[in-house]
Amino acid sequence: MLQSLKRLVIGRPIATADEGHQRLRKIIALPVFASDAISSTAYATDEILVVLLGVGGGAGATKLGVGTKAWGPIIPIAIIVCILMVIVVLSYRQTIHAYPSGGGSYIVSKENLGTIPSLIAGSSLLVDYILTVAVSVAGGVLAIRTATGLSHKWAVPICLVCILMMTLANLRGLKESGSLFAGPTYFYIVMLLLLIATGFYRIFVQHVGPIPDSLLSEEAKAARDHVGSLGLFLLLRAFSSGAVALSGVEAVSNGVPAFKKPEAKNAAATLVWMGVILGSCFLSVSIIAAKLKPYRGEHDGNGLGLVAEYIYHGKGILFWMTMIATFSILILAANTAYADFPRLSSIIAKDGFLPHQFANRGDRLVYSNGVIFLASVACVLIVAFSGDISKLIPLYAFGVFMGFTFSQAGMVRHHIKLKEPHWRVGLTINFIGAVTTGVIALIVVVSKFKQGAWIPALLIPFMVFFFYSIGKHYQRVKKSLEVPEGYKPVRHTHYVVVLVGKVNRGVLEAINYARSLSPERIIALSVVQDPEEERHLHEQWDRYDIQIELHTVSSPYRELTRPVMGFLDEIDQERDDDIITVVIPESVTKVTSQWLHNQSALALKARLLYRPHTVVVSVPVHVD
Amino acid sequence: MLQSLKRLVIGRPIATADEGHQRLRKIIALPVFASDAISSTAYATDEILVVLLGVGGGAGATKLGVGTKAWGPIIPIAIIVCILMVIVVLSYRQTIHAYPSGGGSYIVSKENLGTIPSLIAGSSLLVDYILTVAVSVAGGVLAIRTATGLSHKWAVPICLVCILMMTLANLRGLKESGSLFAGPTYFYIVMLLLLIATGFYRIFVQHVGPIPDSLLSEEAKAARDHVGSLGLFLLLRAFSSGAVALSGVEAVSNGVPAFKKPEAKNAAATLVWMGVILGSCFLSVSIIAAKLKPYRGEHDGNGLGLVAEYIYHGKGILFWMTMIATFSILILAANTAYADFPRLSSIIAKDGFLPHQFANRGDRLVYSNGVIFLASVACVLIVAFSGDISKLIPLYAFGVFMGFTFSQAGMVRHHIKLKEPHWRVGLTINFIGAVTTGVIALIVVVSKFKQGAWIPALLIPFMVFFFYSIGKHYQRVKKSLEVPEGYKPVRHTHYVVVLVGKVNRGVLEAINYARSLSPERIIALSVVQDPEEERHLHEQWDRYDIQIELHTVSSPYRELTRPVMGFLDEIDQERDDDIITVVIPESVTKVTSQWLHNQSALALKARLLYRPHTVVVSVPVHVD
Repeated sequence: MLQSLKRLVIGRPIATADEGHQRLRKIIALPVFASDAISSTAYATDEILVVLLGVGGGAGATKLGVGTKAWGPIIPIAIIVCILMVIVVLSYRQTIHAYPSGGGSYIVSKENLGTIPSLIAGSSLLVDYILTVAVSVAGGVLAIRTATGLSHKWAVPICLVCILMMTLANLRGLKESGSLFAGPTYFYIVMLLLLIATGFYRIFVQHVGPIPDSLLSEEAKAARDHVGSLGLFLLLRAFSSGAVALSGVEAVSNGVPAFKKPEAKNAAATLVWMGVILGSCFLSVSIIAAKLKPYRGEHDGNGLGLVAEYIYHGKGILFWMTMIATFSILILAANTAYADFPRLSSIIAKDGFLPHQFANRGDRLVYSNGVIFLASVACVLIVAFSGDISKLIPLYAFGVFMGFTFSQAGMVRHHIKLKEPHWRVGLTINFIGAVTTGVIALIVVVSKFKQGAWIPALLIPFMVFFFYSIGKHYQRVKKSLEVPEGYKPVRHTHYVVVLVGKVNRGVLEAINYARSLSPERIIALSVVQDPEEERHLHEQWDRYDIQIELHTVSSPYRELTRPVMGFLDEIDQERDDDIITVVIPESVTKVTSQWLHNQSALALKARLLYRPHTVVVSVPVHVD
Repeated sequence: MLQSLKRLVIGRPIATADEGHQRLRKIIALPVFASDAISSTAYATDEILVVLLGVGGGAGATKLGVGTKAWGPIIPIAIIVCILMVIVVLSYRQTIHAYPSGGGSYIVSKENLGTIPSLIAGSSLLVDYILTVAVSVAGGVLAIRTATGLSHKWAVPICLVCILMMTLANLRGLKESGSLFAGPTYFYIVMLLLLIATGFYRIFVQHVGPIPDSLLSEEAKAARDHVGSLGLFLLLRAFSSGAVALSGVEAVSNGVPAFKKPEAKNAAATLVWMGVILGSCFLSVSIIAAKLKPYRGEHDGNGLGLVAEYIYHGKGILFWMTMIATFSILILAANTAYADFPRLSSIIAKDGFLPHQFANRGDRLVYSNGVIFLASVACVLIVAFSGDISKLIPLYAFGVFMGFTFSQAGMVRHHIKLKEPHWRVGLTINFIGAVTTGVIALIVVVSKFKQGAWIPALLIPFMVFFFYSIGKHYQRVKKSLEVPEGYKPVRHTHYVVVLVGKVNRGVLEAINYARSLSPERIIALSVVQDPEEERHLHEQWDRYDIQIELHTVSSPYRELTRPVMGFLDEIDQERDDDIITVVIPESVTKVTSQWLHNQSALALKARLLYRPHTVVVSVPVHVD
């Protein structure tokens, strides 16, 4: 029944040989891999404002109250972010061509910088992907709430439902989710361009002024009108918030093998298109914000919604379409992480730094364990931060820029090592990229440390240590399992101990099974608590005429494990058989009632697992 | 290391033969078994007042606001409760003499009324014991908060710490906790008698009036002065709250075997002493309350504390001693449940209606699983009801009186069946007892249904159903495991399948082990995902010159379980060996890294467990 349910929800299994058909055309690849980056136009400008206007700064922030002066730095910040984006896009074009098999920062760092840097890059990206899900879903739900006026208390439940639905869609497989989500991205791009065009027309042709106070909440009004001064630190923090617009730019380079052939060329073209759309839209939205001064306050701050309401004259059809498109693209952005997180974790797992389960693909060619892990952690974040995007943003950018930095530092080494044609140009581009993104990672962690950047700053080193330990462990196990030189098979002799309680069908079957093993020696062992029990057992032994020797051990402390272990040690001293096989009869019932049985046997088996030269055999007796 | 920690906290194991020494003298048995009942003097009067003054009634209660008229019914209610107690004590004396081996309501119902009534009685008492822990601890912590003025938000954490400490004490064993707790009970009795004597002197000799308003909280003042009218329903609800004073009276009859010999005589004497102390103290406290009108409000309502503060002229040494004694006795009361819950659940488990684990005694002769289960559920209750005693009380009395009713109905049958000397007297006593307590159970559940009595009213039938299902299950298993008539041992032939991935030391050891089993037929099975993997495996096979046949199955869907099951089915059709033994090599590492290994094997083994005539053997390879 569970199987049928799984088939219904997840779909039929897909064979490994069908893999090629799952490749993506550019027109589908753009929404799948670029929606994350493009979607940040929906919140990046707002998040700059949240910092500039002194709200959402967390416990440590000084409420500066910066009034109209606060709106000045928006356009400069947006321009700097766009320049940064050009640098990053150019850098990643290099990477795509150098590494057509994909893997992004992790692969590049591994091949050029070594294990530890690659683990830092990998951990950073994994953290980044998880936050992409949390931030994007929170942002999408905020858009819905802006449109409908739903209160903040609905944020967390709606976010969780969205994550659940996406998880199911992704467990079905990549191509289907690609087609499912392609429409909405283009829908968003069209709606955003229409908003920008209409906005520019109103501002520069019709010369409308800022959004009137009557459209704002009380809280937003007060924040917008307050007058204060802007410090450098605050500007840096605002910039750090804007820099989240770049998250997801590396997604294309990670996903190169998912493109149709020629993979590298298609991926590079998609990357450039993404950069153009993202940069122009982000800058335009910021210009509109500087002119119209949309600000809605801390918990209900979807500026795009306020702008749409203003320039479309109220909550009409165009307003609603814009909000629905915003929600859709942000869900798609979260979906990007569903493609990348499992892919990257499977690569890391294949290298032996994550449990092998992350490298196993499920029935539908999806790395199901990665999908489920990603969804679970994202849910935890949503609950922990009340589904509030402004609280999640400070955690976000550090991982993104750490990934960039290591990827581009790796590319610098790559150019120096290989000296391919035009390597000097590539080296220059990647060197500038590495230094710039490294500085920005530093700015992010310092300026937003108290607001939450301390979390990735502590978590990433811990993850690196953890991955490294797993790697060491798997290495050690592999070495230990190597077949020694000059290995010759030996013929074991073995001693069989059948564990019995009272005599029943299960015990008799276990004894029969034990006899069929043709051991050198066989004995039945029973742990008894009192002489009465011992006598009764011997009686039963005679009654059923059981032909093997019965040995009883008394257990004054009502234990099972210790007396059994003691008896086995005695045997080991007396005899020189290689192996002791312990046969345990176990009742097997329906799954739902299995917990009522064999709990003591379970504890004993766990202990025997660690005993050398001991094999445990459970002989099942089916009851139901 | 875990073992050493356990020894440090719990103590050395105690042998079964040492059991006799753990019996209790009367002077120790009184605090252990009667502290629950006696401790209710600390809150029963308050809980009557909470209802009469119209607070703490929960969402469904009408706030009647009954003013000075409300104080009138206290003494009549207290007298009725005392009469009820005489009836119950007399009834239980009959039970103790009829059932010197203990078991209380459950045993009596089982022997006289049958399985279902006994399970109702048993469930009721288990619920009652859990609530005893929650209510008593909440009451004890309230006393501490009354004395220190700690705010309500500390209630839950302090309660949880108390439960944790008690759990540890009880995992150490019964006798030690008895001696540990004996002092405080007598201390409470002395402090309570002193309070009563001083109170009576002040009231009847010095003629002091009610506690002045200046000592009361604002909320309490308003409630005390309000004037309204008393309905019958409210009086019944107030009486139901007072009736909790009787909880714990049955504890002695459950614990008879823990008394020193002659058990029944000692237990009966202890029961009478308990009744005398409880009745006289409860009545006296109620008289004082009627005269001094102590009322502190909903969340800080320890009336005993207010009386002590008033008659001892402030928070001096006598006030503090009274509060500390109150805290101590209530913790002791909770401890009563720690003696009775595990005892009763072990009796029910031995009858096969609860998992066998509840019948297993730990190292220290304590039914450890019962202790841990009790503590866990009590903690959940404390958290769910914010550690507020007035919210817990409505859940409490139903289970208590259900237990009484079934116990005494059972005794009625007992007298009729056996007709021992003086059986008519006994029959009359128990008949009156059964009818009275049955009516009161009904009053409790009706009058407090909305306030929380619906919880035990739903839970107890569910528990009965659950226990009954477990019982059916164990019966069926037992029947199915019976050795059939004319059983003859058969000699099995068997087919061994060794599961291999790639060839390593573990696989070679598994193959060696499989060969030592001298099977009729042996084959190595490998599930491969592609032809490349298959070729590589055959190469390794040749290289290590492995002498058994290798069979490969391809798994296009990257599964392990299904192809293996399919292969086994094929074998079953081809051959007529009785049993297939599947040998699986498993890497065993340190406990902390074991989760990194064998997850797929685990899933396969779980599936194979349900396959008929199939035995799974894990051959461990130790790595670390």
